[in-house]
Amino acid sequence: MNKDSYEIEPIGTIHSELKTRQEAPNQGCEGAPEAWIDLNPEFAEGLEGISAGCDLILITWLHRARRDVLKVHPRRDPTRPLAGVFATRSPDRPNPLGLHQVRVLEINGARIRVGPLEAIDGTPLVDIKPLLPRSANA
Amino acid sequence: MNKDSYEIEPIGTIHSELKTRQEAPNQGCEGAPEAWIDLNPEFAEGLEGISAGCDLILITWLHRARRDVLKVHPRRDPTRPLAGVFATRSPDRPNPLGLHQVRVLEINGARIRVGPLEAIDGTPLVDIKPLLPRSANA
Repeated sequence: MNKDSYEIEPIGTIHSELKTRQEAPNQGCEGAPEAWIDLNPEFAEGLEGISAGCDLILITWLHRARRDVLKVHPRRDPTRPLAGVFATRSPDRPNPLGLHQVRVLEINGARIRVGPLEAIDGTPLVDIKPLLPRSANA
Repeated sequence: MNKDSYEIEPIGTIHSELKTRQEAPNQGCEGAPEAWIDLNPEFAEGLEGISAGCDLILITWLHRARRDVLKVHPRRDPTRPLAGVFATRSPDRPNPLGLHQVRVLEINGARIRVGPLEAIDGTPLVDIKPLLPRSANA
């Protein structure tokens, strides 16, 4: 059994008008606003090749999530039967990583405007990846 | 600037015939084999609702990757110009998280057979998410 652990260091922070989990839609395409990413300047070099119009996958650390939960009601709907967290996109899970597909709207140095994004204000960003064509892996 | 750090605890391990980074294709759909996931039994309850035929996104910790690199040659091709790691799917990046879309082939308790998967043998698994329909976020 794998009992090692690894340290994640945020590369930046999400700035959003969404201030609480309650305000945030379940997914970006469900009415989420635009947001700014403030990348820590030491990582700005890693953005080379990204420009407005690119589709990206952001990986965040959902810092308000519970890590001790293995069953949830899907889509926060108490009338739905409990499901395993790995069968849902609930933020509550052992390693609360968020996956968000966004479009780049503007880049200004180490600041990136993206949308739509359902992550709340202050969410740490841990990775950025290009969206691959549908024929490749997600 | 965000200077906190967070601890990732693997939920399981990938078992694959791929033993080195050199053997592994860049993406699962480029000829990767099937693999077994051994989930740590304490997390097995979180799988409820997942069955053979489901498409999942696995998030792994690419334990052989370099974390001190911000520019790479895309697709390990030295003839291609250097690009920022966030514009590529290189395993080398500040937080070496891997994203892998796979199909569930078989579930046997806390063991899951999936494919195709380009992660190498011994790679720690950190999260499992359902693939959302194309209209939702990746």
